[in-house]
Amino acid sequence: MNTASMKLITIFAEHVLKDRLISDLLRLGATGYSAGDVEGVGNRGTPIAWQGPNVRIETIVPPAVADRILAALENDYLRDYAVVVWVGTVEVLRPEKFSGPTPRRTP
Amino acid sequence: MNTASMKLITIFAEHVLKDRLISDLLRLGATGYSAGDVEGVGNRGTPIAWQGPNVRIETIVPPAVADRILAALENDYLRDYAVVVWVGTVEVLRPEKFSGPTPRRTP
Amino acid sequence: MNTASMKLITIFAEHVLKDRLISDLLRLGATGYSAGDVEGVGNRGTPIAWQGPNVRIETIVPPAVADRILAALENDYLRDYAVVVWVGTVEVLRPEKFSGPTPRRTP
Repeated sequence: MNTASMKLITIFAEHVLKDRLISDLLRLGATGYSAGDVEGVGNRGTPIAWQGPNVRIETIVPPAVADRILAALENDYLRDYAVVVWVGTVEVLRPEKFSGPTPRRTP
Repeated sequence: MNTASMKLITIFAEHVLKDRLISDLLRLGATGYSAGDVEGVGNRGTPIAWQGPNVRIETIVPPAVADRILAALENDYLRDYAVVVWVGTVEVLRPEKFSGPTPRRTP
Repeated sequence: MNTASMKLITIFAEHVLKDRLISDLLRLGATGYSAGDVEGVGNRGTPIAWQGPNVRIETIVPPAVADRILAALENDYLRDYAVVVWVGTVEVLRPEKFSGPTPRRTP
């Protein structure tokens, strides 16, 4: 079987952030994602508590891309939004599909 | 990056148990959760087979809280309900948000 | 606590494949599953790009069953469909429920 180890990043956020998050993931090198509606509450103590419609986004990426995405999430979202982000290691079938071309740079 | 290792607990259960499960998670020390509607079937051989509306609940907690939650699920749910529970290890951004105050005791 | 290590297989696929995938999982030895609606896009470069309704299916199985399922997915789906498959290791409560009888053979 053709498998390899990759990083699975999961993001739980307010629904209003969905399109922006997905756009950032793809821009930073993710080659796909899935997104589903969930409800929930973020962590106590976050600046903005919320209980509206939420989204749960998943993406699987090589470790180097994961590092780039996590740094961007930390810098661009975690201070201002009650976003929850976690990362695990998974084995994927057809690993070559998870490594896209070098990410597009935005000027 | 500010990350730490935490436990991700996932619970698959009948929808009717959702509010009770979430209440127990928060009472036992979880600081947040997400819940989404899914369909499915529990494991063959469980006392009650079901195929109605189900819920999938996730919570991320420190290891000590995870142990407390798993013990409570085993004692309070697994004998009577077709609940499926699994735990993995994940790295989280902003780990300080996952440790709440000492859990409230109910008399 | 009564726990054991199992494999969590997650499949992201076009919704039209849902019933066939679930049927294959159960035939190959899975004793349960959950399925939820998600949206998303598969990996760039897959033969068929799609952005219609998708499904996210999860099943927890012993390692030997996981190997059988992954081999079947690789052989029967990955060439023709934009299916994404990943596997992780989780600890489950009540592990005896995840091992069914020897899978039914189809002639």
